[in-house]
Amino acid sequence: MDCNNFLNDEDILKDQNRIQPFLNAITRNKHLFKDKVILDLNAGLGLIPVILSRSGAKQVFAMKSHDHAQKIMEQNNVNNVTLHKKSIKEVELECKVDIIISAWMGNLLFYRGNIQELIAARDKYLNKDGLILPDKGQLLLQSIEDGEYREQKLTFWDSVYGVNMKWMKRWVKHEPLLESIRQDQLNSDPVLIYEVDLMKCTLEDLSFSNSYQVQINRQDFVTGVIVWMKYSFTFTHLPIDVIMGPSKSPFWKPVILYFNEEIPASKGDKLKGSLAMKFISEDLIDLKLSVHTKQYHQIQYFRLN
Amino acid sequence: MDCNNFLNDEDILKDQNRIQPFLNAITRNKHLFKDKVILDLNAGLGLIPVILSRSGAKQVFAMKSHDHAQKIMEQNNVNNVTLHKKSIKEVELECKVDIIISAWMGNLLFYRGNIQELIAARDKYLNKDGLILPDKGQLLLQSIEDGEYREQKLTFWDSVYGVNMKWMKRWVKHEPLLESIRQDQLNSDPVLIYEVDLMKCTLEDLSFSNSYQVQINRQDFVTGVIVWMKYSFTFTHLPIDVIMGPSKSPFWKPVILYFNEEIPASKGDKLKGSLAMKFISEDLIDLKLSVHTKQYHQIQYFRLN
Repeated sequence: MDCNNFLNDEDILKDQNRIQPFLNAITRNKHLFKDKVILDLNAGLGLIPVILSRSGAKQVFAMKSHDHAQKIMEQNNVNNVTLHKKSIKEVELECKVDIIISAWMGNLLFYRGNIQELIAARDKYLNKDGLILPDKGQLLLQSIEDGEYREQKLTFWDSVYGVNMKWMKRWVKHEPLLESIRQDQLNSDPVLIYEVDLMKCTLEDLSFSNSYQVQINRQDFVTGVIVWMKYSFTFTHLPIDVIMGPSKSPFWKPVILYFNEEIPASKGDKLKGSLAMKFISEDLIDLKLSVHTKQYHQIQYFRLN
Repeated sequence: MDCNNFLNDEDILKDQNRIQPFLNAITRNKHLFKDKVILDLNAGLGLIPVILSRSGAKQVFAMKSHDHAQKIMEQNNVNNVTLHKKSIKEVELECKVDIIISAWMGNLLFYRGNIQELIAARDKYLNKDGLILPDKGQLLLQSIEDGEYREQKLTFWDSVYGVNMKWMKRWVKHEPLLESIRQDQLNSDPVLIYEVDLMKCTLEDLSFSNSYQVQINRQDFVTGVIVWMKYSFTFTHLPIDVIMGPSKSPFWKPVILYFNEEIPASKGDKLKGSLAMKFISEDLIDLKLSVHTKQYHQIQYFRLN
């Protein structure tokens, strides 16, 4: 349903997983917003600006607003929201702000998100004691077994309507899959592999190289790992964690990365390796996954593009 | 799954509804392709070029080919395919061609398709007795009753998480919906509203204003119409019709257009009106739907954008 703007807005608004945490962060934490100047980086039809205004905000600057947002402000008797159709990069604000609200998230936290825009807006406009919502992000990693699905995906290229496309297999192996997985295909608990604090991170902090160790919880093969994300509002009276887990199918999907060869493992085995992520831009992220066991030492390279 | 090119190719290749008619048109009609020079406007990984070569083509010019297509040609021992990564608009061919193959189709035949490219390539490169595959397109119209769904869609805007967005209703009414419908929501048989012959159509022919008359097949309300498409290969030994009907969910979805008010109708009633489509570009199509009964005379304007 991408034929027009209203329906995109409608789909986003109807996605409670995305909207409700923002609403809770505001309406249950009016003490944060009372008499504050607030910058909403992605206002759309203006839902969040109206809620901010009702929650006591002094002034709201609302970027990337929809053509119809002005009328919606009027019909809700809101008169302290300044709407801009452009993004913050193209607008000059008249003052600093106390709070920035931004859905900066994408897959793997940053892919197809708005993190660069948020960092630029923070450095230019956020007061020294200002806040960002949501302000924290985490990536978690778990080992998986989905050899059958992987084999199907590879076998497909052997004969595509009778045409030999085996050549594609070597490339498909290095494709990160933006897909969920069934709960029973996870064979370790999740471990934290990366954490980011939006209040102070730089563009450089979006790239990392961290080691991991997962404990395999059954006799199984390990075909690769799944990396999923969590983001949090930590300034609220009760912290709000939003988990985009491995086995639901949320808006921001987890990413499956396969080892070159599957690894036989027994219950209790510890699998060690490292994951490096190089943030080049929101549309280009390079990944390097390694795994080490007594028998196996594998390094795989992936690209989200 | 739009994170990379291979997977898009994979999804398209796996969509048998789209691929199989092209394969049938070629492999069951080798007499058309034997010793012919052929232009494939959208080669991708090269499936169709390989099939064309195997079917006796003398020479294939394959546009918009994927980086890996050359290797696939080699591994299939194909050496009479000339691959170009660019589109036909950016390439100068050395000779005219006997056949053009193009997936020129989009929603409502032309929306987000490649019709302008095909017409330009035809006028510049197709021999006088040349062929286009597929060569015909039709739009069919049926009346529908889906008042409940429409009401839900409108009611949503009354209160969006407590915010009054009623203003959006007047706009949402003029949104064409790219959606399928259940078979039991159709209350007339389909009627042909438009037909196009790719062998001779001009850009002007892509716009039209035609009247329709449907016979309502039960006591019901009519909330609007659904317009769906069919495209055909008519030069093949047996004509091949591909029906993108109202109630399956194929790649090219039908379009639902609502009347301003629903119309009560009885079995046997004849509903008359007209549908005009103004093709501005592949990304911008204006629609005008009218309906006339004794009590009702309504005109609605829509835009696919």
